[in-house]
Amino acid sequence: MIQALVFDVFGTVVDWRTSLIRRFEKFGSENSLSGDWASLVDDWRAQYRPAMNDVRSGKRPWTYLDDLHRESLEQLLPRYGLGHLSDGQKHDLVQGWHFLDPWPDTVEGLTRLKKKFVIATLSNGGLRLLANMARYANLPWDAILSADLFRHYKPDREVYLGAAQLLDSPPKDVVLVAAHNDDLKAARQCGFKTAFVSRPSEYGPRQSSDLAAESDWEYVAADLVELSAQLGT
Amino acid sequence: MIQALVFDVFGTVVDWRTSLIRRFEKFGSENSLSGDWASLVDDWRAQYRPAMNDVRSGKRPWTYLDDLHRESLEQLLPRYGLGHLSDGQKHDLVQGWHFLDPWPDTVEGLTRLKKKFVIATLSNGGLRLLANMARYANLPWDAILSADLFRHYKPDREVYLGAAQLLDSPPKDVVLVAAHNDDLKAARQCGFKTAFVSRPSEYGPRQSSDLAAESDWEYVAADLVELSAQLGT
Repeated sequence: MIQALVFDVFGTVVDWRTSLIRRFEKFGSENSLSGDWASLVDDWRAQYRPAMNDVRSGKRPWTYLDDLHRESLEQLLPRYGLGHLSDGQKHDLVQGWHFLDPWPDTVEGLTRLKKKFVIATLSNGGLRLLANMARYANLPWDAILSADLFRHYKPDREVYLGAAQLLDSPPKDVVLVAAHNDDLKAARQCGFKTAFVSRPSEYGPRQSSDLAAESDWEYVAADLVELSAQLGT
Repeated sequence: MIQALVFDVFGTVVDWRTSLIRRFEKFGSENSLSGDWASLVDDWRAQYRPAMNDVRSGKRPWTYLDDLHRESLEQLLPRYGLGHLSDGQKHDLVQGWHFLDPWPDTVEGLTRLKKKFVIATLSNGGLRLLANMARYANLPWDAILSADLFRHYKPDREVYLGAAQLLDSPPKDVVLVAAHNDDLKAARQCGFKTAFVSRPSEYGPRQSSDLAAESDWEYVAADLVELSAQLGT
């Protein structure tokens, strides 16, 4: 008896790569700067997992995702000849993660799923980031569940188990929806049901991982509208 | 520069008393039971603060609001000749707190305020309770902030300061909206801005407290539509 669906957000619900490249292009043209923005965005995202792993391993204390994004951006900018950007400009670029565009099926899929199930984020983004994104992209969440509620990043167990507790549901009655097999694996280990949604262009034209479901997840769908049909909504 | 508004919910946003009396009346007529339902609801609510105070004082560990409601209902029922209710019936009555009707101005007021500000609950209800209520009553929250995120009940400081942290805003840029002077007082002590909304019939025709603002709160309004006008939305 499914009570709630919780969603990975970056990549599963929103197309961070296209959105950020577009934001950098606009930033470049407004500031008469040119650069390989796609490469910069890819390099920036590549720092995401190592930065979180330093927190997950206890090598550093809990650090908010915006701050991790800021640090990794500052490390990257000189390599792109952009070491001279102002504090305000860097802040605006980091804020780009708050204002990402949904995939074309996202809003319809979520709206249909919401008719029958409680729907919530379950993201490594912060609560404010996710609230800003929901306002920007019209994402109809019933609740925002985020890493900063638990001071742990996925795939730490605390995030999944903490979410089930806040939803007042046993993990078996909650489905994690994600485009990433490792996230689903961790959720299943905590007793969650799992739904894989394929986002084969999340990482751009050369994406080589998460192109397909790598386990017998309970649901496998091409997008969120297909998932909503599978779940009878 | 106000960034976000957080709202007390029971009494400020929803009319718990009328809603629960109606639910008990329906329950009574479905089960051929009669009783002084208004008095039962008032007695039930009167247990709310002492029950939370046992948690706040450390006399007992963190206990979820639904469980406090269940305990106090079980204590009351025999006095109303209802000691024989089944577990399922008691559960349904406790669930009544999840499905409360908004005041007539609530949905319009919140919808207008949301255009300009991040709006969130800040309630002693649990996250799931508040999410269920938002679905039932069409409350357009950007985020649900609830006692169980912090494992503290208002007016503990941890709730207000924890909310500001999750909203990534300094307390001075957050407004607590409440119909209760003590809630506003605690929020102000944490650095919040304050807005009093008068709900003179929350406790029924004999209400004797919180009939008016008792301090120089930054905003004082008759209802949420009036507040939205004061805030330029």
